[in-house]
Amino acid sequence: MPIIDKLIDRIVAMQNPTCVGLDTIFDYLPEDMRAGAEDNAAIAERIFEFNKNIIDGVCDIVPSVKIQIACYEMYGAAGIACFERTADYAKQKGLFVIADGKRNDIGNTAGFYAAAFLGERATCAVDFLTVNGYLGTDGIQPFVDVCKQNDKGLFALVKTSNPSSGEFQNLLLQDGRTVYEYMGGLVEKWGKELVGKYGYSSVGAVVGATHPEEAARLRAEFPHMFFLIPGYGAQGGNAEMLRRCFDGRGLGGVVNNSRGVLCAYKKKGGTYFAAARQACIDMQRDLASVIGPMSR
Amino acid sequence: MPIIDKLIDRIVAMQNPTCVGLDTIFDYLPEDMRAGAEDNAAIAERIFEFNKNIIDGVCDIVPSVKIQIACYEMYGAAGIACFERTADYAKQKGLFVIADGKRNDIGNTAGFYAAAFLGERATCAVDFLTVNGYLGTDGIQPFVDVCKQNDKGLFALVKTSNPSSGEFQNLLLQDGRTVYEYMGGLVEKWGKELVGKYGYSSVGAVVGATHPEEAARLRAEFPHMFFLIPGYGAQGGNAEMLRRCFDGRGLGGVVNNSRGVLCAYKKKGGTYFAAARQACIDMQRDLASVIGPMSR
Repeated sequence: MPIIDKLIDRIVAMQNPTCVGLDTIFDYLPEDMRAGAEDNAAIAERIFEFNKNIIDGVCDIVPSVKIQIACYEMYGAAGIACFERTADYAKQKGLFVIADGKRNDIGNTAGFYAAAFLGERATCAVDFLTVNGYLGTDGIQPFVDVCKQNDKGLFALVKTSNPSSGEFQNLLLQDGRTVYEYMGGLVEKWGKELVGKYGYSSVGAVVGATHPEEAARLRAEFPHMFFLIPGYGAQGGNAEMLRRCFDGRGLGGVVNNSRGVLCAYKKKGGTYFAAARQACIDMQRDLASVIGPMSR
Repeated sequence: MPIIDKLIDRIVAMQNPTCVGLDTIFDYLPEDMRAGAEDNAAIAERIFEFNKNIIDGVCDIVPSVKIQIACYEMYGAAGIACFERTADYAKQKGLFVIADGKRNDIGNTAGFYAAAFLGERATCAVDFLTVNGYLGTDGIQPFVDVCKQNDKGLFALVKTSNPSSGEFQNLLLQDGRTVYEYMGGLVEKWGKELVGKYGYSSVGAVVGATHPEEAARLRAEFPHMFFLIPGYGAQGGNAEMLRRCFDGRGLGGVVNNSRGVLCAYKKKGGTYFAAARQACIDMQRDLASVIGPMSR
């Protein structure tokens, strides 16, 4: 069964398309957890402890986590070890793991990235990897091949959530399409052999909640494209803006929230893991109010 | 002094625009070096030993190395530690270090990647990082800011060397330009405050040797843009195809060669490090025959 079907099964069972973003910045940790950690190994150890408690706090109510690799890579090998432990722990607790690396390279080298995260000898348990398709098909095919072999998935950047994403992605091509729509067409093509029982492919797209017009256009144009939707919460996206990312069954994407979950305790008080859990419950309710029940 | 000036000074002093690509795949190592290495830590240790000997063999005749992060990331934290040791060793031997990661993300997160490779607390000695500009200006500015603060440089993907790069990068926009030219314009803009005494910016572009027409167009259109040129050798690019990447002074880029250097011993015999050195000497002569002498 394609990984996308397993993820959607879980979303429907939990009635929750939330993805908790483990973009864990050291400053997000409570002061007492940060005290005395000076070198990268000590910092990485504290971050893992924080992640572990967040995962324990949310794993029975959310289906997936997205781990932002940049936050770990900045601590070198110690940080990467923390990323690996976080992914493995999340997987062990039943969560789907999305590694947010936006990796990209040519041919063979793309294959090494695919092997690193999605291959049989991958050093940790990743289900989906984010990728960047600027290099075209032969830069993405090695990832797709590994997905086919190992039942993994991808999310390729199509329309990103940052303010200046339109500068490049909304350029108009001579055939009247935009750059992001063209990229959407490539993603649809890359994923066409990985479409599962819900009609969605294991090769999906990153589509920001902050650009609802573009999201609606992509949803209409590419019905097999499952979205990883960043930008909810701190970046300004709200549930109403998300409505058009989803189909009539309440399916079509996972909605990521990082800071709003990890730092909920700073606004609401209590322990960080209890506040994170409550933030996920609030987010579930918020999303349900516009998306409606999720059904097979 | 901008890092690009220091690099060009070295190129002129050595009369060599070669960059040795440490895309070190385990299979590139001689059989006796590979024997008995099973786990990632052992493999990473052997790869470092190989890299160290290559660096010792070429450091007095080439100005720079490009380390392909994918080749290290596939071995997890152990691989990243090997990447860090390789970068530090190359720097210690006087080489300019280009980390080929094609990193990209939005705002803050791009800042973490910048910190990881180019910041004050970076875990190893990197001079230049390759980046991917699909996300637009606010995805690249954090890298540029760190370059300004710490005297580092970037190479952004513009026209890549892979066969299908044209599928996306050569699309025509409504104003008649191609996508890669538009990206070239963004790169020129991102780098305009980092132009040094030679007229080149520390924010350069990846331009493949395999697409000489596009390279010539970019050279003419963007005179401040220094090129990182992959595709020489194994990928089919030759010195004649490179001619038009360079200006009248014989300046304008560094030419990467990975497999042709690391695996020279498989064709020519001898030790891998002696064969690598000879391959660099041959490549210098080959490049000089079309680019001519490099002058201030």
